[in-house]
Amino acid sequence: MVIGLLTDFGMTDAYAGVMKGVILNIAPTAQIVDITHAVQPQNVRQAALTLESAYRYFPPGTIFLVVVDPGVGSARRPVAVQAGGWAFVAPDNGVLSYALSGMGGYRAVTLTNSAYHLAETSSTFHGRDIFAPAAGHLAAGAGLDRLGSPVDDLVILERPRLLVGDHQIEGEVTHIDHFGNIVTSIGQFRWESPDTLALSAAGADAGRSIAADRAQMALGETRLMGIKRTYSDTAPGELLCLIGSSSWLEMAVNGGDAGRRLGAKIGDGVVLRMG
Amino acid sequence: MVIGLLTDFGMTDAYAGVMKGVILNIAPTAQIVDITHAVQPQNVRQAALTLESAYRYFPPGTIFLVVVDPGVGSARRPVAVQAGGWAFVAPDNGVLSYALSGMGGYRAVTLTNSAYHLAETSSTFHGRDIFAPAAGHLAAGAGLDRLGSPVDDLVILERPRLLVGDHQIEGEVTHIDHFGNIVTSIGQFRWESPDTLALSAAGADAGRSIAADRAQMALGETRLMGIKRTYSDTAPGELLCLIGSSSWLEMAVNGGDAGRRLGAKIGDGVVLRMG
Amino acid sequence: MVIGLLTDFGMTDAYAGVMKGVILNIAPTAQIVDITHAVQPQNVRQAALTLESAYRYFPPGTIFLVVVDPGVGSARRPVAVQAGGWAFVAPDNGVLSYALSGMGGYRAVTLTNSAYHLAETSSTFHGRDIFAPAAGHLAAGAGLDRLGSPVDDLVILERPRLLVGDHQIEGEVTHIDHFGNIVTSIGQFRWESPDTLALSAAGADAGRSIAADRAQMALGETRLMGIKRTYSDTAPGELLCLIGSSSWLEMAVNGGDAGRRLGAKIGDGVVLRMG
Repeated sequence: MVIGLLTDFGMTDAYAGVMKGVILNIAPTAQIVDITHAVQPQNVRQAALTLESAYRYFPPGTIFLVVVDPGVGSARRPVAVQAGGWAFVAPDNGVLSYALSGMGGYRAVTLTNSAYHLAETSSTFHGRDIFAPAAGHLAAGAGLDRLGSPVDDLVILERPRLLVGDHQIEGEVTHIDHFGNIVTSIGQFRWESPDTLALSAAGADAGRSIAADRAQMALGETRLMGIKRTYSDTAPGELLCLIGSSSWLEMAVNGGDAGRRLGAKIGDGVVLRMG
Repeated sequence: MVIGLLTDFGMTDAYAGVMKGVILNIAPTAQIVDITHAVQPQNVRQAALTLESAYRYFPPGTIFLVVVDPGVGSARRPVAVQAGGWAFVAPDNGVLSYALSGMGGYRAVTLTNSAYHLAETSSTFHGRDIFAPAAGHLAAGAGLDRLGSPVDDLVILERPRLLVGDHQIEGEVTHIDHFGNIVTSIGQFRWESPDTLALSAAGADAGRSIAADRAQMALGETRLMGIKRTYSDTAPGELLCLIGSSSWLEMAVNGGDAGRRLGAKIGDGVVLRMG
Repeated sequence: MVIGLLTDFGMTDAYAGVMKGVILNIAPTAQIVDITHAVQPQNVRQAALTLESAYRYFPPGTIFLVVVDPGVGSARRPVAVQAGGWAFVAPDNGVLSYALSGMGGYRAVTLTNSAYHLAETSSTFHGRDIFAPAAGHLAAGAGLDRLGSPVDDLVILERPRLLVGDHQIEGEVTHIDHFGNIVTSIGQFRWESPDTLALSAAGADAGRSIAADRAQMALGETRLMGIKRTYSDTAPGELLCLIGSSSWLEMAVNGGDAGRRLGAKIGDGVVLRMG
């Protein structure tokens, strides 16, 4: 059974390693995979977006252990969720919202059954004491219902800003990746012909077609004409606009770092004008 | 068999990966888990504290491969140790001290049997050439005695500073974690009632009770009144004092970074005054 | 089957984790090992050197998934290669050059068979869509020929600078590691007696002997006399010259960071004068 870990614990402490020890105590043959531990501290929305972009590439049955938990020790509920053939263990703070949004329903419980916690639980590290044991027990075959009481009102986060108009789409920067690629909330797009993109925004405008050459992207003072297919469709060192690997509109530099070049920050507004 | 890795190798070179290759050559089914590779370079005490906080959460039989080795290639001995149901492979520089201190005895050997080293050994990377092979052979079932000659005088480090007086406890900052939580040598504590903490310092004062509300923590010019249960027991952005996940006294900021706020450094003195 | 991952994806995004999910979908029992994900973005030569230093320590049959791919989505070919008992999956940009150079021949295919790609492939993340599936299918037992058409003209990179003269050897800085050790292209060396080193440069001068005490290393204004065996052969805080764990000449500081001390950069020239 695969267990995917997604946290804001960083790699400099033993926190992620200790969660793995706890899991292997309960489920010795689990395959544990790090998705990332570098979510910004306490940034629930960034974790939710990362999970949304990643979960579908993992095997059916994978258990996602998602611990970005600014409310640890407070009244927020710890939960385990089954949906779409996957399982999730996380604090109920919205971190599962975007992954669950495409799944048409879920089964969830709060992790109230202390028989499935570590014997001693702290008030500051539920990843170790409550969440990792739950993931381990699910991997070892425990039914969801054993872990606690059913709930059906999980916290749901709003989506990042996306306003689709007749002539333009407004959005925001949602992520700047390791390469400096600036990921936005505009999309999702797929190429429907060599020259046109189909928009499948989660809203009324699904099916809209856009001429790639005539689209214009704006971030602050920067204007970029056209949407390219890949980095090397522009000269080395040049800015470009393209559809990233999760189908969102991105700004990038061929062989360089667009985030640094443009001084972009998460939350900055972006506008796509359609020719 | 689980092998837990704890080093100062960082993640930017292939060093940790190469050790895993060596292990899998010898023990193909080993479950290798990274505890952390981000110990400060050559900081043996930090590694010893990290190991102490982590080992107990791993399955019985886990082999801890601990390579923080400023004396590589010198006369310091490479050792393998069994204690408390776990095994450890490390340079004999004290890095196992705190983990072993709670175990009431150990069996140890120096890794003198070159049949269990790589065929060619360097003078600068015993992690790859001597320690990883030893961990691999232990995982593959070799007895401890096969690896070398018995020793019973492992290097033991002093504990971080902890002076328990009638009205105050003096300690020091031992770690500042990824979130900026300032971990100290004062403790260990557990809550014995909603309002009082029991101190179980490794010394004469075990059993001392402290009123959480009346305790006062001092670090430099900063004074904090009271010991809270969790981050959200104070307002967002506020400093607080609490018992961390390994039962040591910590200073933290709810949703923020206390280490940066206070400019704290490892080794800074701290004092807890008991009301 | 072991799959070793070597990329420039960093650890802050989900990219490496997603590749692991793709692999485990295809080869559920694969042992996935991170070699490093911290190659400098788009630095093909650094990845090639890292792979060269690492591959031989992995079990026979290991599949190396090497994704440093500045030309993703362009005409550069994705390839799978078998050589020396190992397998490699990578873009054909030279990243395998140095590992393959010692192997006396290879079998290679371009990854043209889309039945072994993900169902939908992007133009920006072939690591997920093409390379990881190929590694997974090789691990699951697919023959190399199934993945695509044979090729025998893989891109080969030049070696880093190495000019062996009668009285001196010129080279360059190829890497500065996590500890600040400055790795050069001068070598490879092994100790043939307590006082002399044998040079086995990939060229005419194999077999040359050098007196360790009389050699003098130069980097910029810095001159270092003698080649030591290990860090502690000089006083703490002192610079020294030694043979690193992959047999290349290095400059280091005992207990310190030579790269920062000397302000060294990759590509800086170095000269070894032989007494």
